[in-house]
Amino acid sequence: MIKVVLLGFGNLGYHLAKAFQRSKNVNLIQIYCRSSVSNRSFNFIHDLSKITSADVYIIAISDDEIATFSKQLNFNNKLVVHTSGSVNIDELSSANFRGVFYPLQTFSKDKDVDFKKIPICIEAERSKDLDVLNKLASSIADNVYHLNSEQRKQLHLAAVFINNFVNHLYFIGEEICKQHEIPFEILYPLITETSQKGISLSPFLAQTGPAKRNDLTTIKKQLEMLPLPYQKIYEILTSSLTNTYNNN
Amino acid sequence: MIKVVLLGFGNLGYHLAKAFQRSKNVNLIQIYCRSSVSNRSFNFIHDLSKITSADVYIIAISDDEIATFSKQLNFNNKLVVHTSGSVNIDELSSANFRGVFYPLQTFSKDKDVDFKKIPICIEAERSKDLDVLNKLASSIADNVYHLNSEQRKQLHLAAVFINNFVNHLYFIGEEICKQHEIPFEILYPLITETSQKGISLSPFLAQTGPAKRNDLTTIKKQLEMLPLPYQKIYEILTSSLTNTYNNN
Repeated sequence: MIKVVLLGFGNLGYHLAKAFQRSKNVNLIQIYCRSSVSNRSFNFIHDLSKITSADVYIIAISDDEIATFSKQLNFNNKLVVHTSGSVNIDELSSANFRGVFYPLQTFSKDKDVDFKKIPICIEAERSKDLDVLNKLASSIADNVYHLNSEQRKQLHLAAVFINNFVNHLYFIGEEICKQHEIPFEILYPLITETSQKGISLSPFLAQTGPAKRNDLTTIKKQLEMLPLPYQKIYEILTSSLTNTYNNN
Repeated sequence: MIKVVLLGFGNLGYHLAKAFQRSKNVNLIQIYCRSSVSNRSFNFIHDLSKITSADVYIIAISDDEIATFSKQLNFNNKLVVHTSGSVNIDELSSANFRGVFYPLQTFSKDKDVDFKKIPICIEAERSKDLDVLNKLASSIADNVYHLNSEQRKQLHLAAVFINNFVNHLYFIGEEICKQHEIPFEILYPLITETSQKGISLSPFLAQTGPAKRNDLTTIKKQLEMLPLPYQKIYEILTSSLTNTYNNN
């Protein structure tokens, strides 16, 4: 049994806690969070001085608080990891052995996730700590990757394009539909098929549309239909597509 | 039985032909295509003068050829429809009764599609033709929508954002991964979850990430990591996200 203390109970903390609780190989002994929580499934503490001994301490708080928070821990030479895609391993206090435990997924409290399918990216300073993190990650997820801090940051950046920006394009599509009284649900099958094709065919081969065909008539017409802020997005993505397919 | 002649055998024509062939309510009597085809499942003709009588003639060729092609048909007062998202119904020759039969999906010959799940948007000048198109569409698909030409063009534009541009963001994500020797497969679950959340939660509510949080530190760091053309895309989408979430 790997003894775990979870530090933070936001979206990620909540889903991690549920996944650890379901695993036979993990003993989630404490969850620290600042405010009081009306959840009796876990053992909460609200005072950092009450943290007990564990094999791994997992910090699951917002990126810019990780460095400061890790210095407030009143113990030494333990394995302390953060869960951020974009924070370097050495931003953690050197009072403890440092590591990273980064589940690559988008979490909302109101939507359940199957942790088994979430890739977990791990990193540690010492190889024995990497072993512990590997066991811990494997106990809740099927796919564990060992990435260094630079790779993890790049992966996080790729995820911004693939999740944050993609979702914003969905939003723009929905806005266009709303303005013209078109049910957005007409686009659901296209959203699903696009994501499946990106995976099964590769995005380069799956590309279609006026920009790829360099169909200037349609491009011009569509630009004129858009409000100004979306015009800029259309232009810059079309120009990037043109560059991609003319150079190949 | 609705008698259909299909004019064109590109990606869409191919998938339409297969869907009509499977339907008990449709008799696909001819497929016209310019070049010879090594496919014995269908009755091909290569000469427009050999077209026989049918209830519906479906033009499935590229957008900019539709107007000219429809004028070359040597018959009158029949129901002739095109399959394009962005072409107006009145671009078809007025020698025949005009309509539109637009399946909203992305088609590749090497990937099978379940036509049942594809929304078909129909339009016709005469209500009796709309009935025929409704029956024809319902015989191969579960969801049929009646949209006018303006709505269809707007829907097609929304689809450019949701399919073409989304796929290009997948491509950029893959490029970032390749450059840093990160397996792109790590991002597959995120691609799938993002698409499902866009549908189940609505894109506005599903949004996460540094731009939504207005996390300027991460935004600045990530911009510096990107090559110039992708920096522009990052900037413009971040600025659009900032506007969306600061005004709400």
